[in-house]
Amino acid sequence: MDKLHIIGHQNPDTDAICSALVYQSFLRKKGIECEAYKLGELNNETKFVLEQLHLDAPKTISKLDNGSNLVLLDHNESKQSIENLENYSIYQVIDHHKFSFETKDPLYIRAEPIGSTCSILCKMFDEEGIEISKDEAIMMISAIISDTLYFRSPTTTFEDKELLHRLNEIAQIEDVEKYSLDMFAAKSDLGNISPQELVKTDYKEFEFGSNTYGLGVMETTSPSYGINRYDEIKQALIDIQNQDNLKGCFLSIVDILEEKNYTIYSDDNMRDELIKAFNATEENNILHLGNILSRKKQIVPKLKESIEN
Amino acid sequence: MDKLHIIGHQNPDTDAICSALVYQSFLRKKGIECEAYKLGELNNETKFVLEQLHLDAPKTISKLDNGSNLVLLDHNESKQSIENLENYSIYQVIDHHKFSFETKDPLYIRAEPIGSTCSILCKMFDEEGIEISKDEAIMMISAIISDTLYFRSPTTTFEDKELLHRLNEIAQIEDVEKYSLDMFAAKSDLGNISPQELVKTDYKEFEFGSNTYGLGVMETTSPSYGINRYDEIKQALIDIQNQDNLKGCFLSIVDILEEKNYTIYSDDNMRDELIKAFNATEENNILHLGNILSRKKQIVPKLKESIEN
Repeated sequence: MDKLHIIGHQNPDTDAICSALVYQSFLRKKGIECEAYKLGELNNETKFVLEQLHLDAPKTISKLDNGSNLVLLDHNESKQSIENLENYSIYQVIDHHKFSFETKDPLYIRAEPIGSTCSILCKMFDEEGIEISKDEAIMMISAIISDTLYFRSPTTTFEDKELLHRLNEIAQIEDVEKYSLDMFAAKSDLGNISPQELVKTDYKEFEFGSNTYGLGVMETTSPSYGINRYDEIKQALIDIQNQDNLKGCFLSIVDILEEKNYTIYSDDNMRDELIKAFNATEENNILHLGNILSRKKQIVPKLKESIEN
Repeated sequence: MDKLHIIGHQNPDTDAICSALVYQSFLRKKGIECEAYKLGELNNETKFVLEQLHLDAPKTISKLDNGSNLVLLDHNESKQSIENLENYSIYQVIDHHKFSFETKDPLYIRAEPIGSTCSILCKMFDEEGIEISKDEAIMMISAIISDTLYFRSPTTTFEDKELLHRLNEIAQIEDVEKYSLDMFAAKSDLGNISPQELVKTDYKEFEFGSNTYGLGVMETTSPSYGINRYDEIKQALIDIQNQDNLKGCFLSIVDILEEKNYTIYSDDNMRDELIKAFNATEENNILHLGNILSRKKQIVPKLKESIEN
């Protein structure tokens, strides 16, 4: 088989990076030639995780040789993948998101409605009887913590909790709660990032109806950092909407510890769509969506249904 | 969990019916409430298989209560599924075809590029340590034989051969070659079926570019039965194209034993597309596509690429 190129989604988060690195190990243990890549720079949370492990990040790429075999991890939609996805051959997809997906040929897909892609990988190690190393266990635990906000997100399943517990028998993290707070603190430490970068750090485009929307999420233990930069962020959303030819665009500032959602929107149409979908209330031009923590399980399905019906 | 409704594709073939019945057993052995259904009448091959086993066919349905939980087997495209698929909730997909698929929520998907959906089910029994009964083994063997034309189709994998061998340790079919010929003879015995029924017995619609095409396949050990009815079939293809508002429509008569493909097309545009895609030759208004046996692995990907580029 030709070499497999393993990629997580654009604007990579901890699950996208760790699942790519862990799956690279998994395949290499099976004797399969492969390499993990990333489609953008690490966020501060992921940097923290890799620094703890003294591990290098995967190489950043924006293109590969035409016809290269891809493994898509933690995403399936072409908008979230490598540019010109149609130039490559998709060998496999492992993901825990909704699907919007078209292929020319049959392929391997493994998808589950579970907290993280690393949760699925952990099950695959166990099913195939492949041993998990300490570094792999720590990466998978970090991805589960990151994607489920340490079990606060409604995307969390009973299985994620069991898997984290089982992985920590290998990882031996003494205080997982403290480790999760360190991860969230690292994620919240944004320094003087530009407002466009802030919106695009954890950002995905979606098609609702026949229009494209841009949805940024800033998960943080310091929501005031975002709220205090309202004017800059508002302008960045307007600029992104125009640059990327979007119907609408917003940033949800998710207070991880208080479990609240403060949303800044690009324009009045986006505002009205959000109020309709979430019965949101408004205060100082910021929408309160309630305890809406998950883009995948809460924001996207509700907004999609509201806009399309 | 709410009851799961297990459905194979429209114009069901042996894999669609047997995978639904086998998966019903699998889930019931796990204590999950479920029922298998079919979306159309049995073909003669599947009738033969169920008669051998003295098993009833699943109930035919065309709709379910809104919001019902579905398991889609042996298909994923809405065009091949229950009407108004958007009214239901897709819980799981198990399939071995190309994907063209969109959901609102994350879900379970298990897909592999393997000969039949029953091949995947056999692996799932083994992975979960669930015992396979003799009836289940015979149904899975029948589906593998049917979908791979007993290993003649290029969709056949090494794993299908191994799985059939392993299943026959339970099924104890004395002469599998003879059993396959009996299945193919049953499939080829079409009696005085109408030409529209003949085209639609194993028929699927596909989107190539922005147009819809109808692709019928008649796998047979008696290709002359179809070729001799050329005039009627040609007229049926023209009628179907008009009724269903298609860009093109054709029937590939696949000679299983000689491994040849005789194709009757609806109109000159369809003819030109087929000649371009397959470098086909024409004799008495019938196209010879070469030894093209598989709609999934050969006809659809080549035609899609040729039409879209």
